[in-house]
Amino acid sequence: MSTATSDIGLIGLAVMGQNLALNIADHGFKISVYNRTTSKTDEFVAKNPDTPGGLFGAQTLEEFVQSLKRPRKIIILVQAGKATDAVIAGLTPLLEKDDIIIDGGNALWTDTIRREKELNEAGFRFIGSGVSGGEEGARFGPSLMPGGKESAWNELKPIWEAIAAKVDAETGKPIEGAAPGKPVEGGVTCTTYIGENGAGHYVKMVHNGIEYGDMQMICEAYAIMSKLLGMEPKEMSKVFGEWNKGVLDSFLIEITTDILQQDDPVTGKPFVDIVLDTAGQKGTGKWTSVNALDMGVAAPSIAEAVFARCISAVKEERVAASKIINPIFDAFEGDKEEFVQAIHDALYCSKICSYAQGFQLMRAAQEEYDWKLNFGEISMIFRGGCIIRAAFLQKIYEAYQRDENLANLLLDPYFKGEIERCEKNWRKVIAAAASCGVAIPTFMSALSYYDSYRSERLPANLLQAQRDYFGAHTYERVDQPRGKFFHIDWPDSTRPQIEA
Amino acid sequence: MSTATSDIGLIGLAVMGQNLALNIADHGFKISVYNRTTSKTDEFVAKNPDTPGGLFGAQTLEEFVQSLKRPRKIIILVQAGKATDAVIAGLTPLLEKDDIIIDGGNALWTDTIRREKELNEAGFRFIGSGVSGGEEGARFGPSLMPGGKESAWNELKPIWEAIAAKVDAETGKPIEGAAPGKPVEGGVTCTTYIGENGAGHYVKMVHNGIEYGDMQMICEAYAIMSKLLGMEPKEMSKVFGEWNKGVLDSFLIEITTDILQQDDPVTGKPFVDIVLDTAGQKGTGKWTSVNALDMGVAAPSIAEAVFARCISAVKEERVAASKIINPIFDAFEGDKEEFVQAIHDALYCSKICSYAQGFQLMRAAQEEYDWKLNFGEISMIFRGGCIIRAAFLQKIYEAYQRDENLANLLLDPYFKGEIERCEKNWRKVIAAAASCGVAIPTFMSALSYYDSYRSERLPANLLQAQRDYFGAHTYERVDQPRGKFFHIDWPDSTRPQIEA
Repeated sequence: MSTATSDIGLIGLAVMGQNLALNIADHGFKISVYNRTTSKTDEFVAKNPDTPGGLFGAQTLEEFVQSLKRPRKIIILVQAGKATDAVIAGLTPLLEKDDIIIDGGNALWTDTIRREKELNEAGFRFIGSGVSGGEEGARFGPSLMPGGKESAWNELKPIWEAIAAKVDAETGKPIEGAAPGKPVEGGVTCTTYIGENGAGHYVKMVHNGIEYGDMQMICEAYAIMSKLLGMEPKEMSKVFGEWNKGVLDSFLIEITTDILQQDDPVTGKPFVDIVLDTAGQKGTGKWTSVNALDMGVAAPSIAEAVFARCISAVKEERVAASKIINPIFDAFEGDKEEFVQAIHDALYCSKICSYAQGFQLMRAAQEEYDWKLNFGEISMIFRGGCIIRAAFLQKIYEAYQRDENLANLLLDPYFKGEIERCEKNWRKVIAAAASCGVAIPTFMSALSYYDSYRSERLPANLLQAQRDYFGAHTYERVDQPRGKFFHIDWPDSTRPQIEA
Repeated sequence: MSTATSDIGLIGLAVMGQNLALNIADHGFKISVYNRTTSKTDEFVAKNPDTPGGLFGAQTLEEFVQSLKRPRKIIILVQAGKATDAVIAGLTPLLEKDDIIIDGGNALWTDTIRREKELNEAGFRFIGSGVSGGEEGARFGPSLMPGGKESAWNELKPIWEAIAAKVDAETGKPIEGAAPGKPVEGGVTCTTYIGENGAGHYVKMVHNGIEYGDMQMICEAYAIMSKLLGMEPKEMSKVFGEWNKGVLDSFLIEITTDILQQDDPVTGKPFVDIVLDTAGQKGTGKWTSVNALDMGVAAPSIAEAVFARCISAVKEERVAASKIINPIFDAFEGDKEEFVQAIHDALYCSKICSYAQGFQLMRAAQEEYDWKLNFGEISMIFRGGCIIRAAFLQKIYEAYQRDENLANLLLDPYFKGEIERCEKNWRKVIAAAASCGVAIPTFMSALSYYDSYRSERLPANLLQAQRDYFGAHTYERVDQPRGKFFHIDWPDSTRPQIEA
């Protein structure tokens, strides 16, 4: 069979690809699938005979392409990088003008910009779409962040809107039985057009950077409870369960509650206690941090979260160090219940700062790449389907509704008020962790970010004076307009005096 | 005149180039100089008629090359990047086999690796040499970090050793009248062969990253004294002057003492108070941080120092934020004298952690690029001529003498003991700054690094459990060998169970 009857095609049948294909077929779209190893295709199609839309397993790329209605829409879900380029190179000779390739992998946004340019020049269309929510999201409703030309997006839109997560805007709970392709009454469909070329993958990357921050911050709250207060996993699970009913209500807090409740199937001990304390990473948190450094935008808490994973990975070195170093710190003194609430507030304030950094990055990238990002809509499509989904995002949406040009989340009246309400506890937790020897790099970094950002005056005057001293880098003056540069002829200097 | 009588040549007569040329000529070597704008060459040569070695100003690149003894040695001191490539491209058609190009600019080490490969393939030799110490260093003795083939280094060595800084190993004071080309009796000549291809520029980059950390840390000490204790610049100058007699003895503490003592020539007010608090950067701190992220090696304090400059740069945003946000923090209570000592100790411990991170980076790069770095020698050539010169480096040298394979500076008995001696004060300062609203990102990051690195157990077990929950990323167990991976079939999961 090779008549063009499929609505869309998908290349790459790893778990993500299989789940996204089933999600599409479930919503009444006929989908062709192709995988380099054809046995995988056959097995997948045989195992899923009764989807509403129907699956067609193509044996060759030619057959795959011929099975698609025009303009063809082809989703690529293979490993980001060279594999994506290889699939595109194999595909394009078989395509016709205006056909649309959709890269749903975790591509670096600059690769997406390059690919779109190349494909546009060759007469094709391209969408780089972030797909968030892992395998679960892909199957039952991901958060989708498409970037590219609007004409291409309009072709893809009915399918993307049909398969995206749909949640109640108030509760964040998935909405059942939403009709395919239709925005949900009173709810949120977790996809929207993000912007030109790499915008979708860029926003997906920042989403992941924020996710790194969220995860590390939860771990720091856990470390303080465990190390300072001596709490046991099940006791902490109850705390996180309570937190999940308030301002911290989120998927990551929810699964933390589950994890801390879980027993190890082998030993019966609390599960977290048998898990080795080394965390892996796949690179998107690193990309976010590198991009922050490249753009000169402060995202220290996200970078600290990445470095925390790096230190976790050198387990043997840490074990050896723990036997050599005798740390000197105080024992914790204070009321346990009160302090648990303080940890809650510290986590909350730190989280606000981390999101502030993430949104600052998107704001800077918008200028760098001339995108028009709608920060309110972006926070809403994070509302369901993705790892950072949280009640909190509704508040970010509202902040950008109040002021779409908000310079920083910290300046929004709601978040400003929330930090002011919790700030004393935040400071208290950091002071206690410092005194009592618990490493909390992202909590501390978030507080430094807050205290720096709100400071009219930072000690960088001394730093710039140092630069002028040893490198004649000049300085600006508080009593002169910006952009006028001065230099002092420092003692024993061989440098010439530089006039303003 | 175009007979080959010059010992070496130099291209690029900005201040650094002029000073390095004079330094070389002062040591009895005849040097040819060339600059694209020839009037600059003429002016420079005319202004310096009586150097011991002699200057020859070439009008054309051809004349320049012909004036050099073979194998020719040509230093390029132009802007790093494209300008360097352009000069090399213009130069090579005029060179002969085995001639040596020396790039003394602030090149990215990966560019140096590429350039050496290209030049070697074309039959030439190449040295990428870090040149540290700014204009002052270039003129009277820089710290020089050459990387490349040893055969090329051996040709350059007499000149490089002659012009490098020479200091007393005990006091760090420059040694007067050292004979050109001879290592100084009882002293340190601040150059040594670093390693293959990009090793010299890599070490120079890490030097600069450490410099970012040092400068920011001094600024944080200043911020705490100024904001918490209300100290005035001249009073703080006295404190830094005292500190410069102890373990913190260093160039940067010395110039901080000068700067805080300095009056503004215009208003007569303390100079630092009229300097705008926005710090510039030229990128090497960023490179160091990006490289740390790329290699997966924790260098959070260096990254925080870079981000601190980024936040300092958004002055208008900060001023606006300071008018909106009402921070809530405690007033400082405590003994001023005691607290000044505590700030000293906090700065000292933070500095140790920052250097530990820098040397960890070099250790990782050594493996990545198959270099053989001598960390003791590297710390010694930082002893003079460069911005981070400090008594402290002698202790790092001794640490690597005790154990050349030292896994981390924090594990050396001396540094371990020093931190233990000062740790209580370090924690006290961080707790106070957190409670009292002073941003100290690098102090905090250094403490987090220390408390993480010495921890047998970090909360990354929970993080990896989260990754297993939502992404089936698997986990390792504390009761099983490393490299065996497990997965739990979490509730409502669509994922298959993964066998170990």
